[in-house]
Amino acid sequence: MNIEPHFTVEPWRVSEGHFQPELLAQAESVFALSNGHIGMRGNLDEGEPFGLPGTYLAGFYETRPLPYAEAGYGYPEDGQTVVNVTNGKIIRLLVDDEPFDVRYGTLVSHRRALDLRAGTLQRTVRWRSPAGRELEVRSTRLVSFAQRGVAAIRYEVRPLDGETRIVVQSELVANEPGAAVSKDPRAAAALAQPLVAEMHEDHECRAVLVHRTRASGIRMAAGMDHVVDGPDGTVIEVESHEDLARLTVATEIGRGESLVLTKFIGYGWSSRRSLPAVRDQVDAALSSARRSGWDGLVEEQREYLDEFWDSADVEIDGDAELQQAIRFALFHTLQCGARTERRAIAAKGLTGSGYDGHSFWDSETFVLPVLSYVAPTAAADALRWRQSTLPLAHERAFQLGLEGAAFPWRTIRGHECSAYWPAGTAAFHVAADIADAVIRHVDVTGDLTFERETGLQLLVETARLWRSLGHHDVEGAFHIDGVTGPDEYTAIVDDNVYTNLMAQRNLQGAVEAAARHPRTAARLGVDDEEIAAWRDAAAAMYVPFSERLGVHEQSAGFTGHAEWDFENTAPEQYPLLLNFPYFDLYRKQVVKQPDLVLALYKRGDAFTDEQKARNFSYYERLTVRDSSLSACVQAIVAAEVGHLDLAYDYFGEAALVDIDDLAHNTRDGLHIASLAGSWLAAVAGFGGLRDHDGELTFAPRIPHSLQRLAFRLMFRGRRLRVEIVHGEATYELRDGEPLTIAHNGEELTLEVGRPQTRSWSPPQAGPVPVQPPGRGPSRRRPGRSVAPV
Amino acid sequence: MNIEPHFTVEPWRVSEGHFQPELLAQAESVFALSNGHIGMRGNLDEGEPFGLPGTYLAGFYETRPLPYAEAGYGYPEDGQTVVNVTNGKIIRLLVDDEPFDVRYGTLVSHRRALDLRAGTLQRTVRWRSPAGRELEVRSTRLVSFAQRGVAAIRYEVRPLDGETRIVVQSELVANEPGAAVSKDPRAAAALAQPLVAEMHEDHECRAVLVHRTRASGIRMAAGMDHVVDGPDGTVIEVESHEDLARLTVATEIGRGESLVLTKFIGYGWSSRRSLPAVRDQVDAALSSARRSGWDGLVEEQREYLDEFWDSADVEIDGDAELQQAIRFALFHTLQCGARTERRAIAAKGLTGSGYDGHSFWDSETFVLPVLSYVAPTAAADALRWRQSTLPLAHERAFQLGLEGAAFPWRTIRGHECSAYWPAGTAAFHVAADIADAVIRHVDVTGDLTFERETGLQLLVETARLWRSLGHHDVEGAFHIDGVTGPDEYTAIVDDNVYTNLMAQRNLQGAVEAAARHPRTAARLGVDDEEIAAWRDAAAAMYVPFSERLGVHEQSAGFTGHAEWDFENTAPEQYPLLLNFPYFDLYRKQVVKQPDLVLALYKRGDAFTDEQKARNFSYYERLTVRDSSLSACVQAIVAAEVGHLDLAYDYFGEAALVDIDDLAHNTRDGLHIASLAGSWLAAVAGFGGLRDHDGELTFAPRIPHSLQRLAFRLMFRGRRLRVEIVHGEATYELRDGEPLTIAHNGEELTLEVGRPQTRSWSPPQAGPVPVQPPGRGPSRRRPGRSVAPV
Repeated sequence: MNIEPHFTVEPWRVSEGHFQPELLAQAESVFALSNGHIGMRGNLDEGEPFGLPGTYLAGFYETRPLPYAEAGYGYPEDGQTVVNVTNGKIIRLLVDDEPFDVRYGTLVSHRRALDLRAGTLQRTVRWRSPAGRELEVRSTRLVSFAQRGVAAIRYEVRPLDGETRIVVQSELVANEPGAAVSKDPRAAAALAQPLVAEMHEDHECRAVLVHRTRASGIRMAAGMDHVVDGPDGTVIEVESHEDLARLTVATEIGRGESLVLTKFIGYGWSSRRSLPAVRDQVDAALSSARRSGWDGLVEEQREYLDEFWDSADVEIDGDAELQQAIRFALFHTLQCGARTERRAIAAKGLTGSGYDGHSFWDSETFVLPVLSYVAPTAAADALRWRQSTLPLAHERAFQLGLEGAAFPWRTIRGHECSAYWPAGTAAFHVAADIADAVIRHVDVTGDLTFERETGLQLLVETARLWRSLGHHDVEGAFHIDGVTGPDEYTAIVDDNVYTNLMAQRNLQGAVEAAARHPRTAARLGVDDEEIAAWRDAAAAMYVPFSERLGVHEQSAGFTGHAEWDFENTAPEQYPLLLNFPYFDLYRKQVVKQPDLVLALYKRGDAFTDEQKARNFSYYERLTVRDSSLSACVQAIVAAEVGHLDLAYDYFGEAALVDIDDLAHNTRDGLHIASLAGSWLAAVAGFGGLRDHDGELTFAPRIPHSLQRLAFRLMFRGRRLRVEIVHGEATYELRDGEPLTIAHNGEELTLEVGRPQTRSWSPPQAGPVPVQPPGRGPSRRRPGRSVAPV
Repeated sequence: MNIEPHFTVEPWRVSEGHFQPELLAQAESVFALSNGHIGMRGNLDEGEPFGLPGTYLAGFYETRPLPYAEAGYGYPEDGQTVVNVTNGKIIRLLVDDEPFDVRYGTLVSHRRALDLRAGTLQRTVRWRSPAGRELEVRSTRLVSFAQRGVAAIRYEVRPLDGETRIVVQSELVANEPGAAVSKDPRAAAALAQPLVAEMHEDHECRAVLVHRTRASGIRMAAGMDHVVDGPDGTVIEVESHEDLARLTVATEIGRGESLVLTKFIGYGWSSRRSLPAVRDQVDAALSSARRSGWDGLVEEQREYLDEFWDSADVEIDGDAELQQAIRFALFHTLQCGARTERRAIAAKGLTGSGYDGHSFWDSETFVLPVLSYVAPTAAADALRWRQSTLPLAHERAFQLGLEGAAFPWRTIRGHECSAYWPAGTAAFHVAADIADAVIRHVDVTGDLTFERETGLQLLVETARLWRSLGHHDVEGAFHIDGVTGPDEYTAIVDDNVYTNLMAQRNLQGAVEAAARHPRTAARLGVDDEEIAAWRDAAAAMYVPFSERLGVHEQSAGFTGHAEWDFENTAPEQYPLLLNFPYFDLYRKQVVKQPDLVLALYKRGDAFTDEQKARNFSYYERLTVRDSSLSACVQAIVAAEVGHLDLAYDYFGEAALVDIDDLAHNTRDGLHIASLAGSWLAAVAGFGGLRDHDGELTFAPRIPHSLQRLAFRLMFRGRRLRVEIVHGEATYELRDGEPLTIAHNGEELTLEVGRPQTRSWSPPQAGPVPVQPPGRGPSRRRPGRSVAPV
């Protein structure tokens, strides 16, 4: 955690005012640009120094063997790891033969800014070479939302002394060193030089390299094209080799003159298409980008983002830090999903190689619920990706002796890649999380075509999974045994409440969707008997409750376990999983991340208000938040049960996770679920938005420290704006047919041009729950003021 | 399973009448010789062909990395693997330059016999070389019980035609190829050439090689010395190299003449002693063996075994196969423990490299209960080995956040080597199994010095483990959560009955032993408070029972789980763990090996007769016997609850596991626990021997098929013989002071020279329990008759 904030607080930008080597890797993640299709970490143009070099392509991975000292049936043999692909960001600069490198000479000034409205990363450097030459370098980088295969860099060099010899080398570098590797020698071997050269070519200012991964056999092409604007006498050369393509610009520039290089970068990849097809795709992308030109790309980018912010912006008065953080969070949530288009949304998006670039339940549980409201086509595409992996999920279910679809706990392409089944394969709730995202997406968008073509099949196949995974007992109750819920400090349990309630929703959702699309359901083999079995299982779902304590048991027997000895656990022993064995964590009452409390939010319709308050208080005492998937959920439920200051504290931790590096690993990539979750904390927490049974309801309640919270979202094709101040909330329908919503249980029918204002009172709440010693959120100070840049 | 029995049925020998290549590896295990200190598989003298070459030394291992695709806190980083050490068995023969090899030329006859009274492996071969030379080779091999570092071979060659040129090469070969290696490349690398040469020397007919393991750093010396008796003109050469020492005998022998080579083999090893010390130890062993001479070694061996059989023999009338099998079983049980002397007794003894040569709970649960009655010094030494590993067990407990000693699930030296914690570290019952062996050993031998010096410390440190592992609930009941019982198809459960009851016995045993040795207990830091805590925990131990079913739950919630779909499980899908994922096995009612049923035997004092009958019947239906630790336990409890024919069937499976290769993996080594368990099946099953609370009680009950069962054992320093026929049992005290025992609840005081006979009636029993389809034991046919050799 930074003591002094590194990034300047501004409403629409995240900037750093100086170069700080020890924060380089964190900044690379924070400054990452992506459109969901291509991702580029915020590495310096000249490539060095770096924290972690990274350029990633959605769904592009290498396979590697997963080792086991004691193997077991059904253990996945191969893992999938995101590959740092051919780096197109590199632009090296030589000043009178001296390489420009911030570690040498004198760095007079170094500023970078991520512009959340422009969608660009800007850099301005003043540098004096060891030989005393001073110059200014400005670069602006974008990964285009409009042209998904394209990125571009504008690079400008201005000498500040007299005539200076300048050489600029713009490169494509494949198999660059420095990427993280595994301790396992076989995995390290697979990942050390992942790309096998297949072709290289260059022509005028353009060059293309084509490679293929050794084991997974995915082909990729990276290309670059350039527009060079320099003084007379500027010489340009281009060359290409197996792992390197280079455009060299050599010139001499006088004071007041400049060299401006525009670099267009294109990527294409496929596991099926031929080399010429992939190469041509990249050449086409480059031609299209060149035709748009730098200004055109910048303009398209701004238009795309203007439209996004118009439908999605969140305004916060009273905490400038959180105002910035929530926009930063929304920007990266958009970046990870915008153009992912039927590929997996990874836990880190395309911002780093953490978690091997895998996608988890995070995507459906934290990211899609946001995207369905602010970028619905991205949410639909992410679910279509799940649908595209159904053959693999069927295969996995068959291997596990189950019906329907067993989706992987972690994956890039769709194969199960989890090597520790108690916290992987056993976490079957991912199936219900996918179903939940489907149901919500259909409710929010009203898109019945999507439901028929994609949603129904996902609901049916996951319902089949639950039906075969659970069983009725002698009294008829339906149990799901031997699974792992969201809390990874408890595993392989019977009747995890979250799992059971989400499975119930899944089964009910399948029943209802099948009724809406009977012909499609019939084509999927669904008959009345099967629907009846789903209905019975849902109706008979067992939910363990401790009468003695008056709270739900996270899973059968949970509240009978010994409690973790929090008093004698030292601060440096967190996260617990790095300092205590699983066996000890599993057998005690200690919660890594909300599990029962997540059920209180996601299945709020299954609990009374009193149960919510008691449960929240009980589990709050046990939750150590060793996962970044915690704070946002705790914020939402704390707000619902009336602990608004606590909710505010949690909201801060969720939103600032990466800007303040709260989890100490932002270097490996951003915590996309926590960032998306901070939108949920604001909108579902303080806005009280719920969407049970397809109804859009609000229960506004902002904490004392905030003066105003406003948010925008889309519902059934219409745009809404909600503005909350103390005592009042105003609902505005911005387009479309009238819409009925609810404010604290009161139905409101909104019409365009007629905002409606309703009053609200702060909720009553009992004593503020306590957290394990030292594991509560930081109390939020009044937000930092905006610092002038 | 062999359709036709390969081994001839004889009361005191196990022999094969011909060479059968596909059974070579199994025969190597069956014919293994060991004294517990040194083990030699029954490899052919000439080294080839082999199934698995093997020479093993107790406690001699190499370490290797344990790989994890997803590591966790407390996972052991290094494994230990038994090493195939320098092979001293090899004696090659060249006949007119043609190597003697059973695969070439004509094998006229090939007989081998393991003599259970002589303690030797004899081989007689008639072979005609490809060139037509016929000769007879006789060899006799022994591993000396009397001289623990010594083995010897008598090798005799007799030409059956005229004058024949003969060369005999007697060798020591280090790092011989052919041993099993791991799929993990790092482990394979560690084990491919495990021995690093340190020294080699030769002198006259003697040679010594000294090596050291690369990673574990254990030094070993192997030496050989020879006496050669051949015709005039016999030339002898000796040479030594890093990995080879060779004595070459070249001669020419006429018809009626013979060459007789006596080879003495010595081994010494140590992780601490210097090279000269280990070398000198081997030279001393060789000198001592040479002084005894071949005849002396053979005589000592016979004396040792005569004494053993006098105290330990089991006689069975009515089933010749089982008569042989029970003696074979006792012989190998003795071989694995006789001179192990404070090193681990491995699951396979020193007969193969299966399970990496590791020791498990098998040792204390199945082997020591036999050794305490028939070879008590071996049992005491095995427990002294556990005591010697206490520093490691303390360290492990500390790492796991526990008090006392956490003994490893699998190990050679004492370090935890289990790489899958749900079925390893979580199986804490090993601690109670050790305590149980301690308590029984003290009860059976009355050895209070052992209890004070060794037993008490083991009881105290394991009691401390249980006290810290379990916890009292709000009503005071003591629970042990998140552990794994003996049944490896259920893991990480709360209140496993076997674990809880064995822990109860452990805690009580510690309380009682501490009272007997207050000063020693005080030195171990035991005070009244701690004893009270143990007493309370033991008294409050929770034992889950299903009122609805009237049976105990193997663990909390077990009987509420879905039952395994046995009907739809095909025969080839067993063992289930190779064909179904753990998650599916764990969440269903299916039992790999007796768990609750083992508690019925080991803690028979904690159940009523009716509970025993109901429980046995309930769990029998769920037990698939995918572990060789099953049949003997089922035999004992089946006999107790009155199903004598079923007990007889199980007895057969336990005793014949290796002779008939019932588990299809005898090639990797013998199933020592099943063999030892077959003694328990006979003595505790049909003899009804129990030793709860230190009382020696019998409840005789032999099945119809047997006419007579007699067994010998030692109790409190006296020798007893029990003979059971239908309707009667006779108890004979063979030496010592009078002894009180019980026959079916009636107390009998036995005196030397006055055997007492009592009647018994077959027990009443309800319907015979059923097993899962296809998983019942084979019905035993009337035993095969003795085949003349």
